[in-house]
Amino acid sequence: MSDDVLVVFTPSGKRGRVSRGTTVLQAARDLGVDLDSVCGGRAICGRCQVTLSEGAFPKHGIESRAAHLSGLGENEVAYDEVDGLAEGRRLGCSARLLGDAVIDVPPESQVHRQVVRKRTEVHDLSVNPLVRLHVVEVSEPNMHESVSDLRRLLEELEFEWGLTDLECDLHVLTELQGALRTGQWRITVAVYRERKVVAIWPGYHDTALGMAFDIGSTTIAAHLVDLASGEALASAGRMNPQIRFGEDLMSRVSYVMMHPGAEKQMCEAVRTAVAELIVEVCAEAEQTPDNILDCTFVGNPIMHHLLLGLSPVELGGAPFALATDSAVTVSAQTLDLGINPGARCYILPCIAGHVGADCAAVVLSEAPHLREELTLLVDVGTNAEIVLGNRHRLLAASSPTGPAFEGAQISSGQRAAPGAIERVRINPETLEPKFRIIGCDLWSDHPNFASETAGLGITGICGSGIIEVLAELYLAQVINSDGVVDGALSARSPRVIADGRTFAYVLHEGKIRILVTQNDVRAIQLAKAALYAGVRLLMDKLNVDSVDRIRLAGAFGSHIDVKYAMVLGLIPDCRLENVTSAGNAAGSGAHIALVDRNSREEIEREIRRIEKIETAVETRFQEHFVEAMAIPHKSAPFDELAKAVTLPLRTDAPSDSRSSGRRRRRR
Amino acid sequence: MSDDVLVVFTPSGKRGRVSRGTTVLQAARDLGVDLDSVCGGRAICGRCQVTLSEGAFPKHGIESRAAHLSGLGENEVAYDEVDGLAEGRRLGCSARLLGDAVIDVPPESQVHRQVVRKRTEVHDLSVNPLVRLHVVEVSEPNMHESVSDLRRLLEELEFEWGLTDLECDLHVLTELQGALRTGQWRITVAVYRERKVVAIWPGYHDTALGMAFDIGSTTIAAHLVDLASGEALASAGRMNPQIRFGEDLMSRVSYVMMHPGAEKQMCEAVRTAVAELIVEVCAEAEQTPDNILDCTFVGNPIMHHLLLGLSPVELGGAPFALATDSAVTVSAQTLDLGINPGARCYILPCIAGHVGADCAAVVLSEAPHLREELTLLVDVGTNAEIVLGNRHRLLAASSPTGPAFEGAQISSGQRAAPGAIERVRINPETLEPKFRIIGCDLWSDHPNFASETAGLGITGICGSGIIEVLAELYLAQVINSDGVVDGALSARSPRVIADGRTFAYVLHEGKIRILVTQNDVRAIQLAKAALYAGVRLLMDKLNVDSVDRIRLAGAFGSHIDVKYAMVLGLIPDCRLENVTSAGNAAGSGAHIALVDRNSREEIEREIRRIEKIETAVETRFQEHFVEAMAIPHKSAPFDELAKAVTLPLRTDAPSDSRSSGRRRRRR
Repeated sequence: MSDDVLVVFTPSGKRGRVSRGTTVLQAARDLGVDLDSVCGGRAICGRCQVTLSEGAFPKHGIESRAAHLSGLGENEVAYDEVDGLAEGRRLGCSARLLGDAVIDVPPESQVHRQVVRKRTEVHDLSVNPLVRLHVVEVSEPNMHESVSDLRRLLEELEFEWGLTDLECDLHVLTELQGALRTGQWRITVAVYRERKVVAIWPGYHDTALGMAFDIGSTTIAAHLVDLASGEALASAGRMNPQIRFGEDLMSRVSYVMMHPGAEKQMCEAVRTAVAELIVEVCAEAEQTPDNILDCTFVGNPIMHHLLLGLSPVELGGAPFALATDSAVTVSAQTLDLGINPGARCYILPCIAGHVGADCAAVVLSEAPHLREELTLLVDVGTNAEIVLGNRHRLLAASSPTGPAFEGAQISSGQRAAPGAIERVRINPETLEPKFRIIGCDLWSDHPNFASETAGLGITGICGSGIIEVLAELYLAQVINSDGVVDGALSARSPRVIADGRTFAYVLHEGKIRILVTQNDVRAIQLAKAALYAGVRLLMDKLNVDSVDRIRLAGAFGSHIDVKYAMVLGLIPDCRLENVTSAGNAAGSGAHIALVDRNSREEIEREIRRIEKIETAVETRFQEHFVEAMAIPHKSAPFDELAKAVTLPLRTDAPSDSRSSGRRRRRR
Repeated sequence: MSDDVLVVFTPSGKRGRVSRGTTVLQAARDLGVDLDSVCGGRAICGRCQVTLSEGAFPKHGIESRAAHLSGLGENEVAYDEVDGLAEGRRLGCSARLLGDAVIDVPPESQVHRQVVRKRTEVHDLSVNPLVRLHVVEVSEPNMHESVSDLRRLLEELEFEWGLTDLECDLHVLTELQGALRTGQWRITVAVYRERKVVAIWPGYHDTALGMAFDIGSTTIAAHLVDLASGEALASAGRMNPQIRFGEDLMSRVSYVMMHPGAEKQMCEAVRTAVAELIVEVCAEAEQTPDNILDCTFVGNPIMHHLLLGLSPVELGGAPFALATDSAVTVSAQTLDLGINPGARCYILPCIAGHVGADCAAVVLSEAPHLREELTLLVDVGTNAEIVLGNRHRLLAASSPTGPAFEGAQISSGQRAAPGAIERVRINPETLEPKFRIIGCDLWSDHPNFASETAGLGITGICGSGIIEVLAELYLAQVINSDGVVDGALSARSPRVIADGRTFAYVLHEGKIRILVTQNDVRAIQLAKAALYAGVRLLMDKLNVDSVDRIRLAGAFGSHIDVKYAMVLGLIPDCRLENVTSAGNAAGSGAHIALVDRNSREEIEREIRRIEKIETAVETRFQEHFVEAMAIPHKSAPFDELAKAVTLPLRTDAPSDSRSSGRRRRRR
């Protein structure tokens, strides 16, 4: 019998000869096979589970498993009793190779695993965190060799885990001697980027968590993530407390202009909210904040600056100079987040003065730079951040849409919150509306609507509702393509009323009267013209007339019915089925950057490649803007759209006859 | 006329051809010549001063300076008016090469300069600080290119100073935009190790300071240093406020053992004292703490741990495990020192559990590892830290001398402070003493002594005084070689009195009676035996019977008269002229580490090489210890010593006859 055996690992296909009796884990390490382990072969962590494949080496005639792997060891039996070991599974650190074998490493036993992502279509979520845990047993100090506790730890980390030239955070040093003695010379350390020991626990510790934050000017969203699996454990959101300094971005910048140094207060406000969110999600997931070792942050440039304590004043006026457009990594202690003092915080890079780290995160999540098709990404907030391109070339710009799409500057506008009208249909014959509000699934013409919404109230109209009501008013010819409310219709319907020297449409009469005024129409026209002009400008730069796909990111993109956006001409020509919501793409990008170290290099590289277009200095922008004021924009594929819009009307609103729908389309 | 010219730089000898009209500074850079500049060629800093050497290129026949360098430019005239330009000096950034020339770069215009050191004999003090200042002019932002302020700064630092891949501290980022605009796009940045921008000032800034600290258990010494010249600007010292937790090291460790967590209080105490010292020395030198960009710290292992906030408990008992024996670099913000937030603090490495960063600093300053001669370094504190060896081999150990040499455990002992007896002579005939106290240059038998010391008082006896009085008592045969006070002498002199069951010597009768008791003699015998045994152990390891030179470091080493140390047998055989005080070698080492980056690598490398000897586990140590209790130790070159001791007696004390001195020696 030969003294070494042949082993083949699947799915990697790596193979080689090792001494008979070698553990599977050791063989994997020797052959460079990706087999996970936190405990370093002590049969504690269970991360190195493998299976012996059957039917392998047919010509060697593998007949029984037992002949090729050592029997179930004491360690494995003990592990099985406590944590359970699935049928056929073995611990790689205990099972020894006694004969030629094919060993399968299941995905959950791989360090660098590919996880199927729900949200993005292009690439899988790769889990390759920056922080990894390692269990080590450090030799005790003795009088004959004066070697410090840290040096013996580092020697062990090099010997056992191949980690060389590690540095060590000071706070780890303060805990080191106690941890070694409490853990009876067995400790777990967290190592950041194979460079630095950032945290330490006595004995065996198996939890490394991260947090991904999306700092919006209105809301802050937080996601607690298991760094080993890459999976989200809990999420929470809250209002950005900076709102007390100003509702929108520009008013916050103005506040700092008028109160120099106020960026410190705003910085403290957002950091406090972030720290509170951490406590909240940890409580929900029954985790301790001390296990959080890495964080990522995205946000628009002003949120980015205020999180870091940088004055946003330069972002408030031309030439909109960012302090930095590089990614920033700081200690969690700097941000005072109350998590593990060794945790790092990674703030994604901003792209340009108006195109922030949130947009960078959308790019990371949507990955237009990996696709051949021409993708348009639109993230609508106070400004619309626009990215257009493909793997050959990417352009980015920001359009000054103002806050109308968020419900601001609209007479009855409000944020998307319970009670806000979000869906609207208008009968083109009678001009009577029906609508739905956030918090209730019924249309307003349903018999139970009044009772079901009694507790909510009908409080205003949110961004998606405004888009729908304007599109419906246009389709019902209450407003014409110049956006003028047709006052003559007041003779036909009480819904159209005089409002000073112009006319308005009464969407709802109740405790609160909800009007769509001529000014409201103008505000949306300006916003949509700005958005469209920005997109059009980027299309000019690429010399294209249409795009292959459009992804609408953010809350507005999630709520809006894309058909209505096209009716109004917010976005350019594109096949309707290729216009979709990207959901919370910014948060998704923060999540990716948290769990995959390579993604950080990827986005840092890509944002340097992106061509930044400043709409304010482009004369073509003004031309497109003026042209895009009309509804619908000339180039919109109107027939297809009107059909798309009316089809649901038929089912939702049986009172509308098919012929009226057709007639309208023919006009 | 050729379009390029030959230029030779002295003293480097570097030469090459450059285009006619090139500035001297540019030529120096092109040819890799070390020519300083902070302002980057803007004729502000005056660091690039050069002279045109005469008599160069004889065969080319240089006749007039004017032919080979451009005339004095406007910049130089302006500089001369404000700052003064010495005869023959030119600004390298303004003077242009018009013909072949030999250019001399004076030492003060070199970045890496050799400064003659006063204290150490082996190597010159090399000034090569870790932090350098650079003036840059950053382009203004514009609407056509979205490039952040930081990126434009880094691009300029790369273009103008060849600094690539620089990182930037967050606090610099917070100040960046304001500084650029206040300085009208000209700023000065401090760059740490060519790696990181750590500080920033609007406009031109030319001061970079450092602080070197020696944290003793009793006193903390601080030196403010100009990082460009390497020179000390001011110094100050104060008591270590940790004294309130315990007078000596072990009582402070005991305090932490009994009050877990108390290391935090002690840490805060020492950091506060350090911060106060900074304010003090800055006031003295009329400097601002914000200009301090680098600090170094030395101290024994317990002071080292307490400065860093590490518990010293493990150092209080075997096996005396250090948390770390590596050098530690932390941000000044971590230590809360109130200096520039970008400043770094470098804490020198400890060698072993009882051989601290102070000893490492002594090694750095004394550099035994660079010499061929066998050097013994002794730093006496509560423990004696001992280093023995040469460039081939270095050994280190600590001997448990206890605090007797510092005046503790001595009946009338006290610290070296005004009023303490520091010099003693005893007439061997009459047994009458005379002495000097700290704070007065007169001997006690001088007619004016009483009036001059009235304000001081005679308060006790310090370490060097104890050594002298015991040696003199031995030479006067009041104590024998076993250390027994000869009670029979009480019949001959009222100075020898009964003290319980033993006898004592009355050194002074006054408000305070100062006795030398039998217990005092025993305490010093134990201390000196421990010291000698430690040294002897290292000599055994090297298999030598004598050393080439002995350097006594620290306050004790500075105050002690080495002759008396040899009479008592504190130190081994060595030619008397080769036994010298090393002065404040630890502070000197901290200074070196502050101004010369290479010295940090040097000491980190050397301390790894040093063989650490633990006296407690060496049986030979006990043998040497017992043997060394006797006075003088057998091997001491007694005749030479006795002669050395008596010679000054003749001049200091005319009342002693020459014959009595001789007679004594003959015994």
